[in-house]
Amino acid sequence: MVLLSFDIWHLSLNSMVKKDYFIGIDIGATNTKLGVVDDNGKIVNQDVISTKEYTPDELLLELADIINDFDFKIKGVGIGVAGPANVKEGKVYYFVNSPGWDNMEVAAKFKLLTKLDTYVDNDVNVMALAEHCYGAGVNYRNIICLTLGSGVGGGIILDNSLYRGNDFVAGEIGHIPVVPEGYDCRCGGRGCLERYVGNEFIVERAINKIENGRQSSIMGLVRGDKSKITPRIIDEAYRIGDKLAEEIWIETGKFIGIALVGVVNLFNPEIIIIGGGIAKTGDILFNTIYDIIKQRAMEIHKRSIKVIPAKLGEVAGIIGAAMLARQRIESR
Amino acid sequence: MVLLSFDIWHLSLNSMVKKDYFIGIDIGATNTKLGVVDDNGKIVNQDVISTKEYTPDELLLELADIINDFDFKIKGVGIGVAGPANVKEGKVYYFVNSPGWDNMEVAAKFKLLTKLDTYVDNDVNVMALAEHCYGAGVNYRNIICLTLGSGVGGGIILDNSLYRGNDFVAGEIGHIPVVPEGYDCRCGGRGCLERYVGNEFIVERAINKIENGRQSSIMGLVRGDKSKITPRIIDEAYRIGDKLAEEIWIETGKFIGIALVGVVNLFNPEIIIIGGGIAKTGDILFNTIYDIIKQRAMEIHKRSIKVIPAKLGEVAGIIGAAMLARQRIESR
Repeated sequence: MVLLSFDIWHLSLNSMVKKDYFIGIDIGATNTKLGVVDDNGKIVNQDVISTKEYTPDELLLELADIINDFDFKIKGVGIGVAGPANVKEGKVYYFVNSPGWDNMEVAAKFKLLTKLDTYVDNDVNVMALAEHCYGAGVNYRNIICLTLGSGVGGGIILDNSLYRGNDFVAGEIGHIPVVPEGYDCRCGGRGCLERYVGNEFIVERAINKIENGRQSSIMGLVRGDKSKITPRIIDEAYRIGDKLAEEIWIETGKFIGIALVGVVNLFNPEIIIIGGGIAKTGDILFNTIYDIIKQRAMEIHKRSIKVIPAKLGEVAGIIGAAMLARQRIESR
Repeated sequence: MVLLSFDIWHLSLNSMVKKDYFIGIDIGATNTKLGVVDDNGKIVNQDVISTKEYTPDELLLELADIINDFDFKIKGVGIGVAGPANVKEGKVYYFVNSPGWDNMEVAAKFKLLTKLDTYVDNDVNVMALAEHCYGAGVNYRNIICLTLGSGVGGGIILDNSLYRGNDFVAGEIGHIPVVPEGYDCRCGGRGCLERYVGNEFIVERAINKIENGRQSSIMGLVRGDKSKITPRIIDEAYRIGDKLAEEIWIETGKFIGIALVGVVNLFNPEIIIIGGGIAKTGDILFNTIYDIIKQRAMEIHKRSIKVIPAKLGEVAGIIGAAMLARQRIESR
């Protein structure tokens, strides 16, 4: 009884001040984050559940249950997914690392469960939206977002709008070829950026060098167990002065820089925002990327280009998904 | 007297039917083409003068004289230039192969000479406009245009509008790196597409192979004078079954294809339109480019991608420049 009256009071307070909220959901391969976001991009309530514990249908049901318990005045729901999505149809094409999502009409299903208008987009697009609205990209019109992790993703803001392309799958910076006849990539392509700077491939390059006889403190850090090498271990080694680790980061920066020279010459953006795990490596990576762009991009293109770290970190997915819902509802 | 009355009659006929005309000017390094274009993209009058015979100021004066003699009802003038241009300020940054144009305010100067509203853009952007309005790109929203010649240029139509970027210099497909530590390019970059498939570099690759002892009918066609080898000669050799010439075209197609895989994954366009000199080589080049894209671009991106030749040829510059004027005037 007390709870009920509190709820009613809360609800009426909400409608009194006419404050609108949006739900942002970030479905990753491991975890799914959910947040209630106000009109100023502030997260007022937040939750996280394990993606892997549920089937896709169960996951949507669980998320709907959480939302249906909220007493906020929710205007709509945005969902960022770890794979390409058809924004217009609210459909996931597929998830990069989870089965069961192929061609699922996520937006329609979720609306059925919550009665809330729901919009779906790729997670890097959603991150780009967040950085544009409230992060490192505020005040810029033409923005390239790059995320570095197991996959390498891109989101592109042109003239203040997300550019999605003909099938809503534009922005695949990770699949720019950087080595013409390079290694096969899981995307079906060859020599793609992701094939050299995705987490496991950074590790692969380190292991190759070690197996070719190079000395490195990396092996001490993993007590001789090569299977324990991660980008984080390589970074630890770098911070204690390991030369091989330094070389790995410089190589990584060069690959990213070369891909971005093409991106800069093609898009003539104002700013490149880089986020994701290895972006935390910091100066050595950012400086190498920036130097390559300054050395090799075209004169006018590189004059005022900025390369900066993403600002919103882990919550970019929630905020961006909420902004997706806000933008889609406002442009109806 | 007879001429004058004819002019008056023509003028009044023009204003009677209220037909609008636009002037399209295409200033190339060698020739400058000028045309009067009607509202349906039809060239009703055309002229050509030598660019090299004039200083930039004299050239503008000469063009203005021609226009001032016309008795069409001209609504505005568009000028395509062989170099990057600041569309907003009507300013040429520089010409790729002609001195004297640096930072010239071409639009303002030309308006002073003709009293006509004048707009300036890069020649490949203008070609993309023409192909979109009246050529191979009619009915497509997201178009990549590529021109192959001494330089390799690009023009990008997104959501039915020319995408120009932050300083109006976007679309430099010729300066996507295709060989990570490749040859220095005149743009200041390294391993750029243009450095491998620009006319002189196609010839360079042929000469290198011949100097390495490869037999080819190319040497017969130029009577032993290597300095006479051109892409056209290589194509002649190819058509009489020369293996080295075939190899050159396949290599050329591969370089272009690899750059376009990146472009397709980034822009997710519907169609790629290829024009310019060596595009006339035809099937062997287009098939190689298409095969590389079909083999290496991402699944959804390549599903319905088309690669087709430009349609408007030599007059694309005139028509596109006129369309530039029309679009800019209509969007004022």
